[in-house]
Amino acid sequence: AGDAAAGKAKSTRCASCHGVDGKISIPTYPNLAGQNEVYLDNSMHAYKKGERTGGMAVVMVGYVRSLSDQDIADLAAYYASLGEK
Amino acid sequence: AGDAAAGKAKSTRCASCHGVDGKISIPTYPNLAGQNEVYLDNSMHAYKKGERTGGMAVVMVGYVRSLSDQDIADLAAYYASLGEK
Repeated sequence: AGDAAAGKAKSTRCASCHGVDGKISIPTYPNLAGQNEVYLDNSMHAYKKGERTGGMAVVMVGYVRSLSDQDIADLAAYYASLGEK
Repeated sequence: AGDAAAGKAKSTRCASCHGVDGKISIPTYPNLAGQNEVYLDNSMHAYKKGERTGGMAVVMVGYVRSLSDQDIADLAAYYASLGEK
């Protein structure tokens, strides 16, 4: 299972596009705060597996390529835990 | 530009998986309420163009296939307008 505290520590690189609290005003990027944990986990794996292409997917692939399954689980737990702000 | 009121009228089929207010407890599906409008628009087009595969993408492709560019813009405006609940 994901560890939200560990995910927070691993989220530094995510924040440049997704905001420090998972809320972002850049309209081409999705908010992550309060998103469903399993969806977040699945989405990161989808980018890693090359199941999402086009748009900004190439950027995400670059970021998730180096993430382990545990890293992804931790990040999913962290962003889901931020709740709806 | 998208028309949120028109989007609401077109969102009936979306609600079965994404919730009547764009918030859903099913963990494999993403919340849509308050998501960035351009991201929502881009994502629906990505499913329609076959740029997202795996997971639940096949379901989304089935739903978005019949949507026009205006339908997609209206739905994006509607879900973005729901704000953070």
